Amino acid sequence: MKAGIITIGNEVLKGKTVNTNAAEIGKILHFAGYDVFRGYIVPDIEEEIRWAFRSMIEMCDLVISSGGLGPTFDDITVASFAKEFSLPLVRDNKTFNKIKKSIESRGLEMSKEREKMALIPEGANVIENNVGTAPGIDIKVGKARVIILPGVPSEMRSMLDAVSGSIKVNDIFFSEESMLVEGIYEATIAPYVKELMEKYGGKVYIKTHPSINDKGQSSLEIEVSSRGKTIDDSKMILMDTLRDIASMVDNIKKHGN
Amino acid sequence: MKAGIITIGNEVLKGKTVNTNAAEIGKILHFAGYDVFRGYIVPDIEEEIRWAFRSMIEMCDLVISSGGLGPTFDDITVASFAKEFSLPLVRDNKTFNKIKKSIESRGLEMSKEREKMALIPEGANVIENNVGTAPGIDIKVGKARVIILPGVPSEMRSMLDAVSGSIKVNDIFFSEESMLVEGIYEATIAPYVKELMEKYGGKVYIKTHPSINDKGQSSLEIEVSSRGKTIDDSKMILMDTLRDIASMVDNIKKHGN
Repeated sequence: MKAGIITIGNEVLKGKTVNTNAAEIGKILHFAGYDVFRGYIVPDIEEEIRWAFRSMIEMCDLVISSGGLGPTFDDITVASFAKEFSLPLVRDNKTFNKIKKSIESRGLEMSKEREKMALIPEGANVIENNVGTAPGIDIKVGKARVIILPGVPSEMRSMLDAVSGSIKVNDIFFSEESMLVEGIYEATIAPYVKELMEKYGGKVYIKTHPSINDKGQSSLEIEVSSRGKTIDDSKMILMDTLRDIASMVDNIKKHGN
Repeated sequence: MKAGIITIGNEVLKGKTVNTNAAEIGKILHFAGYDVFRGYIVPDIEEEIRWAFRSMIEMCDLVISSGGLGPTFDDITVASFAKEFSLPLVRDNKTFNKIKKSIESRGLEMSKEREKMALIPEGANVIENNVGTAPGIDIKVGKARVIILPGVPSEMRSMLDAVSGSIKVNDIFFSEESMLVEGIYEATIAPYVKELMEKYGGKVYIKTHPSINDKGQSSLEIEVSSRGKTIDDSKMILMDTLRDIASMVDNIKKHGN
């Protein structure tokens, strides 16, 4: 099952905001069993937002976006999405009343900008926003499920948690573990890592990350993830791989880099 | 002038690594005067890397990528890029000798994996890596300039600094300033912000970011960026806009949200 991540917002493109949302979404998708296929970052421009959804929906089973749900003029994610798929926007009364109540309690008036946040594409399910105002959207387009979340990280996170149970891919379980080794170079270990991955035929993914420790020595993080049909299965594959890596590391240390 | 950012790496897609590289590149591009048009995050898969470069180069004047330059089997950025544009890979002798010297000083042997880091597309300029091993690539493809950087943030940053002087767009200067106001709602200010941007006809961009301060009060960051033909020009437009915003804020506070 393929998944794609869309981040919407000029502030992300021009580096004012670091894209932590995409990382949080990626992690949830990965551990839910998806192959996270691509990420897009697009500006608050209708044509770009429409392209991002169109392109992702063609390729993915699940698309999650964040950003562009607020009240300001450049929050146009829902309207652009609805336009792209010719979905009329309808008022979600529960959200509208919630906004109205909150506004009236502060002595404010309903405005076009506030009302906009209660508009959802016809046929969509609303994901309630218990942290802020704008709700999320959960909708099927063709064979893809599309989840549209706000960009404010605390709001995004709470709504992502709320849907995470419902996006689990059946019968794929992941296990992950990292080893930190010192005195071994990434380039030395590279051919053995490749061999090991071939041995486990796609059930294991090994990635190495070189870094410098506190004492200025180079160390290497070896990150192993495995997938299996059951959690025991994925754990067993992981343990086997870690044992293989440990003896590989011993060997390199014995015979030199 | 349009610019695009490509991030290459499974670890970014699955949320193990937060995409700080894209933010740093975005900031440099924005302040160099580019319209940062799109960001892609793609996995360490040849077809995906080729698509990312092909698609960006069609649309942009400048493309900067990070990731996939190391010695491991899944570091395939340069090879994939070269294949897409039918560029033969040639050995960069300076880099090769640097790698060889460093390896021999550690009593190691040259390997295929290490040698790979010295291969560059024919016609490319090398961006020296003073922090790590793999060099960067600076090359023209059609009318686009393509800069390929490593994914390790400290290496990426040092090479980005090295090229930043050469990517400046002439005659576009940016100024930016943020104001923090309390007791004003984003939805209230939204229509005035829109009016103000129309008044300055594309020379000013205003973005609002709601947040909660230490005391639990909601505050609003109003971020203004302006562009001008000279630095004085952009600063003057910025000051005028900030004055307009200040009086707008006063007005809202006087007459209620």
